[in-house]
Amino acid sequence: MAFDLAQLSDLEAIKRLKYKYMRCLDQKRWDEMAECFTDDAVASYSGGKYHREGRDAIIEWLRDSMGQETFLSSHRLHHPEIELTGPDTATGVWAMEDTVIESDWRIKIEGAGFYEDEYVKVGDTWLLRRTGYRRTFEALGPFEQARLTASWWATGGQSTIEA
Amino acid sequence: MAFDLAQLSDLEAIKRLKYKYMRCLDQKRWDEMAECFTDDAVASYSGGKYHREGRDAIIEWLRDSMGQETFLSSHRLHHPEIELTGPDTATGVWAMEDTVIESDWRIKIEGAGFYEDEYVKVGDTWLLRRTGYRRTFEALGPFEQARLTASWWATGGQSTIEA
Amino acid sequence: MAFDLAQLSDLEAIKRLKYKYMRCLDQKRWDEMAECFTDDAVASYSGGKYHREGRDAIIEWLRDSMGQETFLSSHRLHHPEIELTGPDTATGVWAMEDTVIESDWRIKIEGAGFYEDEYVKVGDTWLLRRTGYRRTFEALGPFEQARLTASWWATGGQSTIEA
Repeated sequence: MAFDLAQLSDLEAIKRLKYKYMRCLDQKRWDEMAECFTDDAVASYSGGKYHREGRDAIIEWLRDSMGQETFLSSHRLHHPEIELTGPDTATGVWAMEDTVIESDWRIKIEGAGFYEDEYVKVGDTWLLRRTGYRRTFEALGPFEQARLTASWWATGGQSTIEA
Repeated sequence: MAFDLAQLSDLEAIKRLKYKYMRCLDQKRWDEMAECFTDDAVASYSGGKYHREGRDAIIEWLRDSMGQETFLSSHRLHHPEIELTGPDTATGVWAMEDTVIESDWRIKIEGAGFYEDEYVKVGDTWLLRRTGYRRTFEALGPFEQARLTASWWATGGQSTIEA
Repeated sequence: MAFDLAQLSDLEAIKRLKYKYMRCLDQKRWDEMAECFTDDAVASYSGGKYHREGRDAIIEWLRDSMGQETFLSSHRLHHPEIELTGPDTATGVWAMEDTVIESDWRIKIEGAGFYEDEYVKVGDTWLLRRTGYRRTFEALGPFEQARLTASWWATGGQSTIEA
């Protein structure tokens, strides 16, 4: 396996597309996130349970289900195995982990899984055309014994733990 | 520190070797995982506690200890510091985190540590010749308060949480 | 978005700077960590709560707050979006997750957030000139139900779980 300069450049650009998407998700930047998808993008999350067609439908679903400022999430991607399948097309497999604390409902969700994506290059820019993941596991439990000591929104991202 | 094209290509290829290895581990793809090792590979996991010599012995041990479909794992690698030590040899240090839920035994293990690897290029393909990690910490606790809401095997990777 | 060879080389070097910094943090290698910063570096952790000016003040603070061998930490960086802003300057945004177990105090802290950095190239070497993060969330809870089964320092990184 060897990569030329154009391929390495494309791989870096595709990785950053996903990093921007994930940053926008956890920071709730829905308008900026919309820049990551093609108009006709298809998302099929959680083994196909949550299936949405079209960029607007995807963003609407994400905003509705994760938009509350009491929904505190960390979605993390790992292990990119990206295949350049043509000059303007690529596929990717990524490992994923996510943690969600819902501070009003006092629950915590922890999960892991694998994304499978399709990317397309439009002009100079790589975009998501298909995305989705299947979970290795997911666990839902109470968030009772721990207490929330920082929140991007409620504390400006500062810890309230006193040394 | 500057890298030429051949070096950047080798770094990308070595990273993908590790990503494939980790994907095969969490998806229990033992035959595909075997492609990642040299015949005479040596693995020394958990600070040397689990030491296996030879590809077949390594795969057998991993399959025996992690092969059950109730053993749900997420192993994640981070922070690759890879040194190309010759045209066909390299070493690597990686940060590692792992989470295991054993849904029959109702236990959860969480850990972190650092991998140290040796790689060798055989023809066009980088392979693992030595691998192993030492833990920063590991914690074993009950998996009682939370409930499993998705499994790659038991639910097809779909969440069973109802909104 | 396209990258030339010099840019890809710089991106790899900057990523490794951060990986070294994080490895030194979790392995408590304070002298080696000092190599990562400029003399006049500024760190502003936890949304600005912990602000230190100068490499020595930063290292001193990290050593004082995280130096105990009962302070077991895993800091992980993800999703680098690095912008090369000049031949010798760059900025970076990274996702972060951290887990801390304090085995004497029997507490566990879990958090996530985003780093914003500035880098400068001095000779051939990229260094941190500014660094800091803002938390998405942080949660402090008891470490009571689980038991510590490995520690880099107390068990040589070996698990003490018996199969």
